[in-house]
Amino acid sequence: MKTSRLEAFSDGVLAIIITIMVLELKVPEGNTFADLRHATGKGLLSYLLSFVYVGIYWNNHHHMFQLARRVTGGILWANLGLLFCLSLLPFTTAWTDETDYARSPVVLLGVNLLAAACAYVGLQQVIIRAHGADSELRRAIGWDAKGKLSPMLYLTGILSAWFVDTHGRIGVIIASACYTAVALVWIVPDRRIGRAVSEFGSPD
Amino acid sequence: MKTSRLEAFSDGVLAIIITIMVLELKVPEGNTFADLRHATGKGLLSYLLSFVYVGIYWNNHHHMFQLARRVTGGILWANLGLLFCLSLLPFTTAWTDETDYARSPVVLLGVNLLAAACAYVGLQQVIIRAHGADSELRRAIGWDAKGKLSPMLYLTGILSAWFVDTHGRIGVIIASACYTAVALVWIVPDRRIGRAVSEFGSPD
Amino acid sequence: MKTSRLEAFSDGVLAIIITIMVLELKVPEGNTFADLRHATGKGLLSYLLSFVYVGIYWNNHHHMFQLARRVTGGILWANLGLLFCLSLLPFTTAWTDETDYARSPVVLLGVNLLAAACAYVGLQQVIIRAHGADSELRRAIGWDAKGKLSPMLYLTGILSAWFVDTHGRIGVIIASACYTAVALVWIVPDRRIGRAVSEFGSPD
Amino acid sequence: MKTSRLEAFSDGVLAIIITIMVLELKVPEGNTFADLRHATGKGLLSYLLSFVYVGIYWNNHHHMFQLARRVTGGILWANLGLLFCLSLLPFTTAWTDETDYARSPVVLLGVNLLAAACAYVGLQQVIIRAHGADSELRRAIGWDAKGKLSPMLYLTGILSAWFVDTHGRIGVIIASACYTAVALVWIVPDRRIGRAVSEFGSPD
Repeated sequence: MKTSRLEAFSDGVLAIIITIMVLELKVPEGNTFADLRHATGKGLLSYLLSFVYVGIYWNNHHHMFQLARRVTGGILWANLGLLFCLSLLPFTTAWTDETDYARSPVVLLGVNLLAAACAYVGLQQVIIRAHGADSELRRAIGWDAKGKLSPMLYLTGILSAWFVDTHGRIGVIIASACYTAVALVWIVPDRRIGRAVSEFGSPD
Repeated sequence: MKTSRLEAFSDGVLAIIITIMVLELKVPEGNTFADLRHATGKGLLSYLLSFVYVGIYWNNHHHMFQLARRVTGGILWANLGLLFCLSLLPFTTAWTDETDYARSPVVLLGVNLLAAACAYVGLQQVIIRAHGADSELRRAIGWDAKGKLSPMLYLTGILSAWFVDTHGRIGVIIASACYTAVALVWIVPDRRIGRAVSEFGSPD
Repeated sequence: MKTSRLEAFSDGVLAIIITIMVLELKVPEGNTFADLRHATGKGLLSYLLSFVYVGIYWNNHHHMFQLARRVTGGILWANLGLLFCLSLLPFTTAWTDETDYARSPVVLLGVNLLAAACAYVGLQQVIIRAHGADSELRRAIGWDAKGKLSPMLYLTGILSAWFVDTHGRIGVIIASACYTAVALVWIVPDRRIGRAVSEFGSPD
Repeated sequence: MKTSRLEAFSDGVLAIIITIMVLELKVPEGNTFADLRHATGKGLLSYLLSFVYVGIYWNNHHHMFQLARRVTGGILWANLGLLFCLSLLPFTTAWTDETDYARSPVVLLGVNLLAAACAYVGLQQVIIRAHGADSELRRAIGWDAKGKLSPMLYLTGILSAWFVDTHGRIGVIIASACYTAVALVWIVPDRRIGRAVSEFGSPD
């Protein structure tokens, strides 16, 4: 079975997830910029944040499936698991943003990001296993420092937000730094895959 | 006529159905986990349930169309009928969940699931008929125990919820067990189709 | 330019239009079927009606583009015009249904259906013109009785609802009969196109 | 890497953006046209305006990618930037319309349109750079008067709305004229690209 329909369905779900938060922006009552600030609050910033996060996953999903040649039942479910985790991101991002980065929302955002990262790595493993020992994706990814580092950074962030300086802001600041660091690492999609596609060709 | 556009449209509709319930999750007023539990209630659980149900149908729809080589007017309408039934699942799942599995909602959920199962079997029959006596899909599906068992299990569930132990919980528990049993049977997409695709090749 | 992307975009828009009304169904407060009837009112019926109307257009759009070999700027805009008209159908159907088929909503629904029918015929003409005198679509459609009859039936319906028996129900009943007649005529997608595709082959 | 998946994802996002505002149309309480006017207010007009704007971008996006042969990480992000700008258009259009073209909303709409125009030009540049000095897109676009004129017109509009005749309507009228002028210039998708596609062939 070819990957095209799985990609099309994922694109549909991700297109909805990435635009969900724009539905929350309410048109201001008045006609000045002060009214605008009052009406949207932090809505715009949360929207941008969640847009970037989902965008990062879309870009990397797109890259990863360039090296997948077939789809199995396991890949379908691993992909649905990833989509489920990502679909909660607009919600957790909005809560974090609206509470000015309070402790519990920051922990929940970290758990959500961690779950998505694990689902992504899981999907990668299922694809590699479905393609046999000689998988092009496995060779392209190699030791996968990015994939191994991200969950550890998220975990550090979650634990900091929960345990460090519970009456102050330091734990939350460490956590935000960790989450941002992972985003920066992934914002450039995987060059290793780009190289592998040039070498082996794309399956489409 | 080829199946690609029918699949693309179905993917679009299913992508919307699978993510509809995330729109219902409201960001909590406060910033603690207690506020979160109060704000989302059972929303998250209903969302997960409905996500899994729609996911099962998407996976099996995807498998079934691997063996469809052409599209007729009848297939278009049978497919729209299935999509209509599935589009009501988020609604019936949410009602069931929010009423703590009360009798009427459990009956309605069963009717909805039964309607979707019948629409699925109907679509399968229409596809087989459109491809002639020698249809690969028919040979792949064979006697179709899963397709025949599911409606009977749903019916058992609906009748139990409606007639058994109307002042207690036993009828509802039997019904939930029936619905879950069908989901488990279908969560692994059809291996027979997977084998047939390897044998005959995919139409794309 | 090929038609695949125009079809994909139209599928996306139509998928959203066809499922919009399910977002309006609110989960009932209580847990009995009476609560359900109170909460959804006529929502479910409007949803079904609008689903069928949009489904008819999707099926016919799908058929028509089987015989389109290229896309021009004019086709893009004619297609967007059709999508715009169709996107208002959930709204006009709901108003008609919720007011128990009052005069003004029935007139508005007729105007909306008429606009969509004109946009469809317009799109058909633009496609034919873009393919030259020898267009396969033109030969397949021939004299196009269906396309010529529909606007006239809609117009009859609109005028009946507006002028006939303005204090009673007869005008509205005639209008509803006209609208239903057109739907029945179009519910079977164009067999002429099906035949032409077998004869000339599909462009994909 | 091929462009098909980037186009499919953009189509999904644009399909959502173009139909978002129809979700805002609320069914009137009463059953007369006066109730309709009261319930929808300027909703319908804003919807049409935003539909046309997004339609213009979809048409031109579609044309531009006809001459793109491969996708890079930079193209993915430039494209996401454009989608983000466009996703705010329904919001800014609605605010402008509902405040009867007050000064601040007109300025904000201009900023949004300017941002989208810059993102479009940026995407065009990134695509050209990814295809090397000999890019077909660059040859097709040539000196690109349209691309250079649009931001200047938007800027003129923004400055007029903000500084000219701040107690009267003249500044706002100039701004609206500027925005409309750009829309009219772009409503016909790029014929230069159409010619180039005939000459070089499309990558699909």
